[in-house]
Amino acid sequence: MTPAAVAATSRMREEIFEQPDTLARTLERLAEVRQRLRRLRNDVDRVLFFARGSSDNVAIYGRYVCEVMVGIPAALGAPSVATVYHRSLDLRRTLVVTISQSGQTQEMVDVANWARRCGATTLAVTNTAGSALADAVDLPVVTDAGVERAVPATKTFTAALLAIAAVAEALSGGRPFGDALQAVPEQASELLARAADADRLAPIVATCASLTVLGRGFSLATAVEIALKVEEACGMPAAGLSSADLQHGPLGAVHEGTAVLVAAAAGGPTLPGLTALATRASQSGARTLCIGGDARLRAACDAAVMGADLPEAIAPIVEVIPGQLLTESLARMLGHDPDAPRGLTKVTQTT
Amino acid sequence: MTPAAVAATSRMREEIFEQPDTLARTLERLAEVRQRLRRLRNDVDRVLFFARGSSDNVAIYGRYVCEVMVGIPAALGAPSVATVYHRSLDLRRTLVVTISQSGQTQEMVDVANWARRCGATTLAVTNTAGSALADAVDLPVVTDAGVERAVPATKTFTAALLAIAAVAEALSGGRPFGDALQAVPEQASELLARAADADRLAPIVATCASLTVLGRGFSLATAVEIALKVEEACGMPAAGLSSADLQHGPLGAVHEGTAVLVAAAAGGPTLPGLTALATRASQSGARTLCIGGDARLRAACDAAVMGADLPEAIAPIVEVIPGQLLTESLARMLGHDPDAPRGLTKVTQTT
Repeated sequence: MTPAAVAATSRMREEIFEQPDTLARTLERLAEVRQRLRRLRNDVDRVLFFARGSSDNVAIYGRYVCEVMVGIPAALGAPSVATVYHRSLDLRRTLVVTISQSGQTQEMVDVANWARRCGATTLAVTNTAGSALADAVDLPVVTDAGVERAVPATKTFTAALLAIAAVAEALSGGRPFGDALQAVPEQASELLARAADADRLAPIVATCASLTVLGRGFSLATAVEIALKVEEACGMPAAGLSSADLQHGPLGAVHEGTAVLVAAAAGGPTLPGLTALATRASQSGARTLCIGGDARLRAACDAAVMGADLPEAIAPIVEVIPGQLLTESLARMLGHDPDAPRGLTKVTQTT
Repeated sequence: MTPAAVAATSRMREEIFEQPDTLARTLERLAEVRQRLRRLRNDVDRVLFFARGSSDNVAIYGRYVCEVMVGIPAALGAPSVATVYHRSLDLRRTLVVTISQSGQTQEMVDVANWARRCGATTLAVTNTAGSALADAVDLPVVTDAGVERAVPATKTFTAALLAIAAVAEALSGGRPFGDALQAVPEQASELLARAADADRLAPIVATCASLTVLGRGFSLATAVEIALKVEEACGMPAAGLSSADLQHGPLGAVHEGTAVLVAAAAGGPTLPGLTALATRASQSGARTLCIGGDARLRAACDAAVMGADLPEAIAPIVEVIPGQLLTESLARMLGHDPDAPRGLTKVTQTT
């Protein structure tokens, strides 16, 4: 009996538990495009990501992994420059990466076509081979997460993160992650084996009126994605932000009635700052939780879930998993159907 | 008797009412650096903005005005790549713009020094001549907003927006805004003359548990800044985001008990989408408000404040003003001191 069968109470939870398999399959699939990805190195000097929703949070990871691990300037683009203002930019020697699990978001197809007209090399990360987006770009990178039925993206999110890490590795021309990518599926299993710890965070958040999720650097993507999941599935105000930004204003809204969740790798230079902010949030009366981090961060929080045994640059691929579990538990606890949040659809067309 | 004298109940409100003067003075000051700004055109092919807090919202405006009005690729940088991960990037032919009203944020000084080592041309927008940041860059662009005493930035925010518009105009080599920049101080006066309308939004927001502020394209900067002000001064969970992003998840947290405020220019291609989202938020049970927009947007909302008579690309310089007034009223209504939000300081050093 798999853990999935034991714990399954929604499609979302089933899909969360599929991730060791979907990540392993995606790793194999990525090996097939490695040669084509490596050839990109000669054509591009910078990377620009375009996406919406959870895919936009994949893009946040992409910017850090490209800049910090590859040393290539990377940033997030504004889709409206292309699709609303129809402004042409000089994007020669730029890799434009669009991300969409469905590959059916017309806005991203339009961005990819615009980018090509602007001189960019275009790449798409999508879970759907043969989709409009896959067909629109120079190089489709297709993940193998299978069909995702729950509206909140889970397994397609982590598969897309893995694909972005593979793109970064190819751009580096080396092996900046060593063997860490191969360990990702097993680390997903480890995190799922501790699902009960993640579920125990839900009743704490349920007593609060809003949730602030903090990350920094690599873990920022995890923070904003967990916040998005909670807003989407639980109907609770939630914000994901950099611990550095928290001090520049939003700390004013952290007090009794706020849950503060810190997402951190087991090590790395952001850990002291994140720990200091957790302590400060606690002093402001907030309930504090953490996913990952070290013993010091865990000691600073009311409740904690152990993170992955992965380097800081790779940990975000799976470190969202306890946040996904928390979201699914919290949604049911608050009387929501996690698979079908009110007012949202699986494929969103931007108006 | 000036409107300031009539309405003053906090330093924040006094400073809000100084804006016609501070913007007029800043306009004169900017004329002095126009020639030096124009010479930048030959040296740079792209722009990268770095900032925190309200200054980061100025940067959001900067990216749209540079890309849409000048046609030069622009993006927001991640300070941690420089200051936490110490990663060198190739920033030749890149204009790196740091923004800090105090010019004393060490993080921004470090970013400016890093950018110069990476080959960038460096520019700072600051309200403090002779500050560490002004001295660290190739070209300081100093606004003339006077000393700002209230913790929430108001007059330094709009002065910095005006400076960014002047930088964009210089990079364009033409006059993309026509005479609109000259009209900014007067339009600030017009918005302040309607302060009572803005104040009337406060009791509506006060009945809600959280605030979502929507913008798109140029007005996104206004939306995120108003949300930041409300979090900072009123201690209420508030999120500013693109109406396009709202549909990709956060709409799940918009329901009874949520206030949705739309920031829009009087015209432009984003207006139909913003109006559609206001209607959708209303159907979800939210209280809906707007600043700016046209008769159709106002009709879709429970309450409205007229915006500025300025083109879409310039309107954001002053269109935050009704949001500043709303924040100041709401803070007092909720029993907070708008000048000194709990736990926040005027000059923030990032940990």
